[in-house]
Amino acid sequence: MRALAMLKIGQTGWIQKERPACGVLDAVIKPLALAPCTSDIHTVYEGALGERQNLVLGHEAVGEIVEVGCGVMDFKVGDKVIVPAITPNWRTQAIQEGVPAQHSEGMLSGWKYSNIKDGVFSELFHVNDADMNLALIPDGMSLSQAVMLPDMVTTGFHGVELAQVDFGSTVVVIGIGPVGLMSVAGAVLRGAARLFAVGSRPLCAEVARKYGATDIINYKNGDIVDQILDATRGRGADHVIIAGGPSEVLEQAVRICKPGGVIGNVNYFGEGEFLRIPREAWGVGMGHKQINGGLTPGGRVRMERMAALVMNKRFDPGLLVTHTFQGFDHLEEGLALMHNKPADLIKPVVFV
Amino acid sequence: MRALAMLKIGQTGWIQKERPACGVLDAVIKPLALAPCTSDIHTVYEGALGERQNLVLGHEAVGEIVEVGCGVMDFKVGDKVIVPAITPNWRTQAIQEGVPAQHSEGMLSGWKYSNIKDGVFSELFHVNDADMNLALIPDGMSLSQAVMLPDMVTTGFHGVELAQVDFGSTVVVIGIGPVGLMSVAGAVLRGAARLFAVGSRPLCAEVARKYGATDIINYKNGDIVDQILDATRGRGADHVIIAGGPSEVLEQAVRICKPGGVIGNVNYFGEGEFLRIPREAWGVGMGHKQINGGLTPGGRVRMERMAALVMNKRFDPGLLVTHTFQGFDHLEEGLALMHNKPADLIKPVVFV
Amino acid sequence: MRALAMLKIGQTGWIQKERPACGVLDAVIKPLALAPCTSDIHTVYEGALGERQNLVLGHEAVGEIVEVGCGVMDFKVGDKVIVPAITPNWRTQAIQEGVPAQHSEGMLSGWKYSNIKDGVFSELFHVNDADMNLALIPDGMSLSQAVMLPDMVTTGFHGVELAQVDFGSTVVVIGIGPVGLMSVAGAVLRGAARLFAVGSRPLCAEVARKYGATDIINYKNGDIVDQILDATRGRGADHVIIAGGPSEVLEQAVRICKPGGVIGNVNYFGEGEFLRIPREAWGVGMGHKQINGGLTPGGRVRMERMAALVMNKRFDPGLLVTHTFQGFDHLEEGLALMHNKPADLIKPVVFV
Amino acid sequence: MRALAMLKIGQTGWIQKERPACGVLDAVIKPLALAPCTSDIHTVYEGALGERQNLVLGHEAVGEIVEVGCGVMDFKVGDKVIVPAITPNWRTQAIQEGVPAQHSEGMLSGWKYSNIKDGVFSELFHVNDADMNLALIPDGMSLSQAVMLPDMVTTGFHGVELAQVDFGSTVVVIGIGPVGLMSVAGAVLRGAARLFAVGSRPLCAEVARKYGATDIINYKNGDIVDQILDATRGRGADHVIIAGGPSEVLEQAVRICKPGGVIGNVNYFGEGEFLRIPREAWGVGMGHKQINGGLTPGGRVRMERMAALVMNKRFDPGLLVTHTFQGFDHLEEGLALMHNKPADLIKPVVFV
Repeated sequence: MRALAMLKIGQTGWIQKERPACGVLDAVIKPLALAPCTSDIHTVYEGALGERQNLVLGHEAVGEIVEVGCGVMDFKVGDKVIVPAITPNWRTQAIQEGVPAQHSEGMLSGWKYSNIKDGVFSELFHVNDADMNLALIPDGMSLSQAVMLPDMVTTGFHGVELAQVDFGSTVVVIGIGPVGLMSVAGAVLRGAARLFAVGSRPLCAEVARKYGATDIINYKNGDIVDQILDATRGRGADHVIIAGGPSEVLEQAVRICKPGGVIGNVNYFGEGEFLRIPREAWGVGMGHKQINGGLTPGGRVRMERMAALVMNKRFDPGLLVTHTFQGFDHLEEGLALMHNKPADLIKPVVFV
Repeated sequence: MRALAMLKIGQTGWIQKERPACGVLDAVIKPLALAPCTSDIHTVYEGALGERQNLVLGHEAVGEIVEVGCGVMDFKVGDKVIVPAITPNWRTQAIQEGVPAQHSEGMLSGWKYSNIKDGVFSELFHVNDADMNLALIPDGMSLSQAVMLPDMVTTGFHGVELAQVDFGSTVVVIGIGPVGLMSVAGAVLRGAARLFAVGSRPLCAEVARKYGATDIINYKNGDIVDQILDATRGRGADHVIIAGGPSEVLEQAVRICKPGGVIGNVNYFGEGEFLRIPREAWGVGMGHKQINGGLTPGGRVRMERMAALVMNKRFDPGLLVTHTFQGFDHLEEGLALMHNKPADLIKPVVFV
Repeated sequence: MRALAMLKIGQTGWIQKERPACGVLDAVIKPLALAPCTSDIHTVYEGALGERQNLVLGHEAVGEIVEVGCGVMDFKVGDKVIVPAITPNWRTQAIQEGVPAQHSEGMLSGWKYSNIKDGVFSELFHVNDADMNLALIPDGMSLSQAVMLPDMVTTGFHGVELAQVDFGSTVVVIGIGPVGLMSVAGAVLRGAARLFAVGSRPLCAEVARKYGATDIINYKNGDIVDQILDATRGRGADHVIIAGGPSEVLEQAVRICKPGGVIGNVNYFGEGEFLRIPREAWGVGMGHKQINGGLTPGGRVRMERMAALVMNKRFDPGLLVTHTFQGFDHLEEGLALMHNKPADLIKPVVFV
Repeated sequence: MRALAMLKIGQTGWIQKERPACGVLDAVIKPLALAPCTSDIHTVYEGALGERQNLVLGHEAVGEIVEVGCGVMDFKVGDKVIVPAITPNWRTQAIQEGVPAQHSEGMLSGWKYSNIKDGVFSELFHVNDADMNLALIPDGMSLSQAVMLPDMVTTGFHGVELAQVDFGSTVVVIGIGPVGLMSVAGAVLRGAARLFAVGSRPLCAEVARKYGATDIINYKNGDIVDQILDATRGRGADHVIIAGGPSEVLEQAVRICKPGGVIGNVNYFGEGEFLRIPREAWGVGMGHKQINGGLTPGGRVRMERMAALVMNKRFDPGLLVTHTFQGFDHLEEGLALMHNKPADLIKPVVFV
């Protein structure tokens, strides 16, 4: 079984892997469409997860079920399914006490693919607890749309949830790669009125406007904090969503946020021992600027709900897909695109 | 000063009133556009507030300021303003303990116009605490749009807030008069996926679809509870918004709502000593079907936030306005329309 | 295997049952202490669940494990455990969408004992998903204390959660049987200041004061609504917990609750087709008096958390136990006590 | 009029000030009891607010009203009142949009005494908006108890609110000076089970146990993070309250907090440009460890609610008062005590 793997830090390549075994509650999936993610780039080229050898990459997939365990109730061989990037164990004590399932067996434990087990860039891959972690692709949804759900859509929308956007509020989305663009779309679907999108790539800015951004803030035009404070007459934003950027974006978010406002982070901070909160802008600890950061929810119902938004035409994640490839062998090219980020790229998809 | 008043239960007419006095923090307004409301009909023809004599009607207005008290900081004569239907006293102990401002001096006390003081259907009318209760009409907003904000928009949206709509959820809006239509629009802007709108008037159904309803449920096709349970394969709705109807709609809402779901009511229940909760469908008291009912928020910031949604093109309340009149004298015709409810009516506006 | 059962409506008796089979994730328990509950009385003598034949009664137990399935990880034969009255299936889609586990397979589905399967008044009984639904009895906890946790404590405390008690608030607990007394104790542990306990039995009133009630309201002294409104100078209560009583208590709760207040119900309403909300006192639908009613949470962590409160001396549920019996055969006497409710009874316990 | 002031950074002294003018809604107060605070020490000796000259110190007072403005409704000359440290302007747009009143005119704007106006260490002092910011001292409350409410009690309790303590949870309070001790007392009154109090002073540890701490963690016995993780078998705490300490405590709090847990900060961080979040322990941005930091609520109702807890015997703030002085002239000694912090000090009170 062929798979595209991280051979070691800085190097990818095709390897042979054993076909995954299928547990009683599990399923084995043949991919139909795959999407490389910036996280894959972090993992391979920045060593963000540390050294790994022959780890299969990838966590964004839709596919067809080729095997199910005898305990699986709701899915059968041949079903076409959305596979969330986050596939928690849902039967834990942590969940009983209100810990998000993403952390049900320890912090970030729901993030399994290409982290604590092989990823989805493989001729076949495994999913734990199929009934709880798979969702059918609805009739009429394109594979391009569907493969945006496992990570881009749910992560972008989770930023909106963490930032607690409400009706008529002023919202800032920092970072308008594909996740940030989904935060823009999601913020509109939670009631944002004025919506600042912070980014510098012209294509992303254009798509951000399509998704509902009202103001594009480009760091090339000056400090983004100053620009947003000026535009809001010093008041700042009600809600700030961090969907990309280096460590410094957290500082900027605190400065942009009003007292009583909320900062939601879905960015994977990849570097440095510490993130920094600017003491005075945070009210010397007492400014009521809440800071939430979290891994996106996964699992079946999350995928079904995101899919329901698409099928009811609340937004179209398909606008994210700028590049497509036909054939599993093109995966490496798709990954290279995410590495090189040409100006016309938002997100590539490889149809298998 | 002429005004259109409830003379007694069942009878309206033009009367003369004294020009209102303007307190230190208050303002006097000359209306630019007025909208009659079903509540006015309840008040006059059903005696819903009890007997009243020579009470000026109306609580939906935009206007121009003709006088401000010496303590008013942010508004001046000549400003064109949105006047919320609900104008609370914001400086109370109730607010300190988290009671919604609508009830800051006792239940429903924020509802002043045509209830505990004269309404806005007058050549001039009074507003308490102008800085806290008025909002400028933004440049570019039509008077038709603006005059939908004081009640229709904010009330419809409050139903959505009370029902706690979230991403990808299944939502039911019971009643699709103008308030319910705004609940439909608002539910989309809080993340509703599938959205059932319950109503029988063809025009309202058509506009509900424009605002984002995906399914129209008409009682003429059978029991609405059965229809919705069938359509959701017995699961019911995550959120139910009651925006109109007789007492029975609360029972229906409980039956439609899933365990763990939320019912938000903004309907003014006008009749009977009791509303009824069906015991078994409510889980014999233990079904976790939360019931919230509340008067819409008022005040300046609420109006500004609703206006910001319109100006940022999140929705257009102007679709509600099916009939317009030019001239103060046409108010009585507008009111009669609300009384008679012809098939082509959603909401009339009278430009003064 | 002997068990105390409902033979039919109105009649109890000892029967023989088969030893329960133990599934892969399950356990079989031998009771150490059992407590009859008013719900058992409702079931048998009022037919509240409808006709049942030879249904084993009882849902309050602590016991010793005599068998575990091969998939059970954290428990072994010989462990002494608390068995919650509510034992949900925790691996469901409902939980993924935020439905309380109590309803994870349909409304009230977590309530299994003496409802959808045989109860615990048996020489041996079954528990589903032992790892998720059992908790060890902590060293040093008495069996009397422990057997109050499965229902009395968690249910009383859930009333407090549903009513959202906060610091320094005025709280009313309607009904001061054992559940209501735990609501009193729980309200203190959520910050209640003034705490009205509504009940007429002198012993219960005395224990309510021990748990922290500051005012006892007895219906024999006049209408309870009037008494509480008088005592609060017309203001009403911030939070009302319904822990017992006939249908009418919901009406009373609405009248007692301030606008912006919250009503939490854990009472099992046993009669009538409808519960009634007084229309005017509920602000004609718009008074922001939230109504929550729910089945108590169950499961392992809930029991562990309640036990942690006891072991850290936050309160002592042992005060509830007024009558004890030694020997399984005395179960029928215990049950009869709950039926007859002598003046000196709060809660009986049968040690096996 | 004599007052104890900060003359400049590092120097205090008695000065003469003009009697304060009393606005329409305001009051002038003669102190009955005053308490120096660590914040006063920060202000004078660490220049935490920057250079100030002849700024009257103090923000913890109870007193007697000597003058009221003509618009004051509920208070009169001679009333004995609690004066909160935080006295917001309650009639602002910020409050309408849900910003805590503490920030109603900009971040931290509710903190007026000894910050943006003269403090309370004066023969007479001013309070803005008396009806909204004063509370009567209840009959039977000692002045020692009462003067703990304006800051110590409300601030400690706010830490508990920010950390969202719930039933049966494991809570850590970092810092057990008087504010931290009130966080301990408050955490018990929100349902904490196991309660770690972090501090090294024996007297404070002893009082912490009286207020309900179950475990005392002393940094002299090793790293506090390690100690708490060991004691919880690596699980960490559900809720962490920061009530004192240098910048490093925020890092520690993040390490101690479980995924899905909440950190509440009421500590005034006095030094450095940045606070630091440990990146990996914060789940590289995605660990769902919420960080809330906020200035304590002020105003009348807050004082009334805190007072109601004391009067209903939920806790006794009087345990904090270790040193008392008779006479206004002893204020300087009291302040010196807070500066020198002898081993037997928790909090001094000066009776005037």
